[in-house]
Amino acid sequence: MSKLDEIRTANQQYQQSFPWRHLDVPPSRNIAIVACMDARLNLYEAFGLKTGEAHLIRNAGGLATEDAIRSLIISYKLLGTREFFVVEHTGCGMLSFQNSDLQDKLTADTGTDASGFDFLPFSDLKASLRTQVDKIHSNPFIPKEIPVHGLIYHVESGNLEHVVSLGVKDQASELAGQIA
Amino acid sequence: MSKLDEIRTANQQYQQSFPWRHLDVPPSRNIAIVACMDARLNLYEAFGLKTGEAHLIRNAGGLATEDAIRSLIISYKLLGTREFFVVEHTGCGMLSFQNSDLQDKLTADTGTDASGFDFLPFSDLKASLRTQVDKIHSNPFIPKEIPVHGLIYHVESGNLEHVVSLGVKDQASELAGQIA
Repeated sequence: MSKLDEIRTANQQYQQSFPWRHLDVPPSRNIAIVACMDARLNLYEAFGLKTGEAHLIRNAGGLATEDAIRSLIISYKLLGTREFFVVEHTGCGMLSFQNSDLQDKLTADTGTDASGFDFLPFSDLKASLRTQVDKIHSNPFIPKEIPVHGLIYHVESGNLEHVVSLGVKDQASELAGQIA
Repeated sequence: MSKLDEIRTANQQYQQSFPWRHLDVPPSRNIAIVACMDARLNLYEAFGLKTGEAHLIRNAGGLATEDAIRSLIISYKLLGTREFFVVEHTGCGMLSFQNSDLQDKLTADTGTDASGFDFLPFSDLKASLRTQVDKIHSNPFIPKEIPVHGLIYHVESGNLEHVVSLGVKDQASELAGQIA
């Protein structure tokens, strides 16, 4: 059976007892999460989320790219989210290569020059996470009062470690950001 | 209790019986999915997926943006995925606004000129889906033999409708692509 057939079979079963007919369009918990695409990171499990509760934005690394920022603006402006989370994780593939390695490999394999392609690898997990949170919080189109939390997911334990929060008025949360 | 506290409480429970300690880095079903960030679309449920099986790439619309292509290249080249899926869905927010509406609103609310920001809305769901599948299949850095399937998720029923496949050698699947 092809992968497409496997998925269609599973989907037919899902439709038999489909419970989400009446969900509203805006996420019911008013949150949006930017996270790495990594297969080991299941945001429903790690965050205790149900279907319909959050916008999920994912890419290689869990980075605040222009595309992620575009998605966040649509999320808060048109669909009412009011709190953002960014999740990077231990053992991330983005920590394991250099741009030039992948560019050279792609150029050799495809015959098309890949030297201008920035794959956005990084070498320091916490520094990268802080950069993403800052990029979102400081974007001129994102309101300063939207809290942006940065978390590291530990693939060995399931732990979501709170590293930083920006845009948070509450004193305890600011402290958590400062001491992380 | 703040949203962050709620999530940390749920996450502590998750860690108690964390079952995924020994997952490999490459997705075990060797697939990557590009899908809309919509809260109603739960890819685990709709595809019959488990944690660890697939790379999940999500943005507003489920679009083959430069960032999604970056993620797909990393996915197949460094982490061994061999089949791609693109999922857009009925009732998508991207069908409900014009670029100029959102640009004007943002400019008025933030005082920063948003007239150059392309939020990538679209007006024809199937045409958009076909465009995304084609953009991925025709990208010079994506091998032509990787099948790319385009599916529409129906938020009212849970149905994943197969609309198009490119890069598929199997005759039946080509036919499904042609007649969809």
